[in-house]
Amino acid sequence: MEFQEMLGKRRAINFFDPNRDVDEATLRKAFEEGANAPSSFNLQPWKVIVLRDPVRKAALRKLASNQPKVTEAPVVLMILADRDGWKEGNETWKKRFETGFKPDQREWFAATTKTLYGGSPEASQAFATKNAGLFAMSFMYAASDLGLQTHPMDGFDHEGVRKEFNIPDNYWIPMLIAVGYAKPGLEILPKAWRQSYDDMVIKTY
Amino acid sequence: MEFQEMLGKRRAINFFDPNRDVDEATLRKAFEEGANAPSSFNLQPWKVIVLRDPVRKAALRKLASNQPKVTEAPVVLMILADRDGWKEGNETWKKRFETGFKPDQREWFAATTKTLYGGSPEASQAFATKNAGLFAMSFMYAASDLGLQTHPMDGFDHEGVRKEFNIPDNYWIPMLIAVGYAKPGLEILPKAWRQSYDDMVIKTY
Repeated sequence: MEFQEMLGKRRAINFFDPNRDVDEATLRKAFEEGANAPSSFNLQPWKVIVLRDPVRKAALRKLASNQPKVTEAPVVLMILADRDGWKEGNETWKKRFETGFKPDQREWFAATTKTLYGGSPEASQAFATKNAGLFAMSFMYAASDLGLQTHPMDGFDHEGVRKEFNIPDNYWIPMLIAVGYAKPGLEILPKAWRQSYDDMVIKTY
Repeated sequence: MEFQEMLGKRRAINFFDPNRDVDEATLRKAFEEGANAPSSFNLQPWKVIVLRDPVRKAALRKLASNQPKVTEAPVVLMILADRDGWKEGNETWKKRFETGFKPDQREWFAATTKTLYGGSPEASQAFATKNAGLFAMSFMYAASDLGLQTHPMDGFDHEGVRKEFNIPDNYWIPMLIAVGYAKPGLEILPKAWRQSYDDMVIKTY
């Protein structure tokens, strides 16, 4: 659909139709379109866990303020932001290097990514989570364009989820995304307040 | 344009036409469309500094590996991610609260946002930067749809930029975005490697 029409269709809906599944092909397409997002040196430091199992979704719901959408949506994604995604040994790092650079650039690439993203814990956290944010937004727009509804959530017990799902320490979990279709008859409220240009721009040079 | 066509048009181009300006109305529209992005409790913890002045862009370029696009692009945005955006006293927090909640929900809202996003420096850093990532992606797609070219950059001396532009400590600077039009005759290379669904999904339940 038209980009501007899609902008209006992308809404964080609260109630999903538990009887309407998301087929695998559509989900894959939303991921692969979403992957068009840019990222720091194209390092793509994000991974995803896909939950369709009612038992695992119920365990997640308990750690997410018991929000019904966690079990009602047919698919819930757990987005993982890789704080080690800039490290030379990292698998995605290697793939990105091999597909974009010459072997003799390896030392330079390793030093540059380490300096920029490995200089402090806050730099690594920012690297991982901003890039996961770029991907998540791109995914949600792609999903909306394919007729799906999404709802990003970060109101959950972060360390509880880490423990319950054995998430290694290199990953931060910036958000969950419920994916599915709206519950029949759901009333969509007008979009909430957004900052205007003048609200956002605090200085112009 | 069609969303899928826009996906192909959004490329991080390296060479901008220094002789073609971005008019204010188009830039505002890209911001206000980009602001359709979702965010944590709709707190929108991002602000922007807009640079058009050649002298300020030159100062920024020195801190950004001397990349020509910092001065060649007519507009460079400095995205600021507000690590205090969850605090009750924060201006955007207040506006968001007032436009979406009843006065007697204030205590609950303050406690919830503090617990989720103010529990540790890493939680605040993630809150600020993932949301800035959502906005930045949405802005870049909106800009592409309006015919603009963009290039996100985070290869810069973060603390040097903070000092040069007097950026308060509550802000992290997740990226700069060059905005403009492609240099005439610029050859656009094929899109670099992206993770497939199977690369991204590390576990399915």
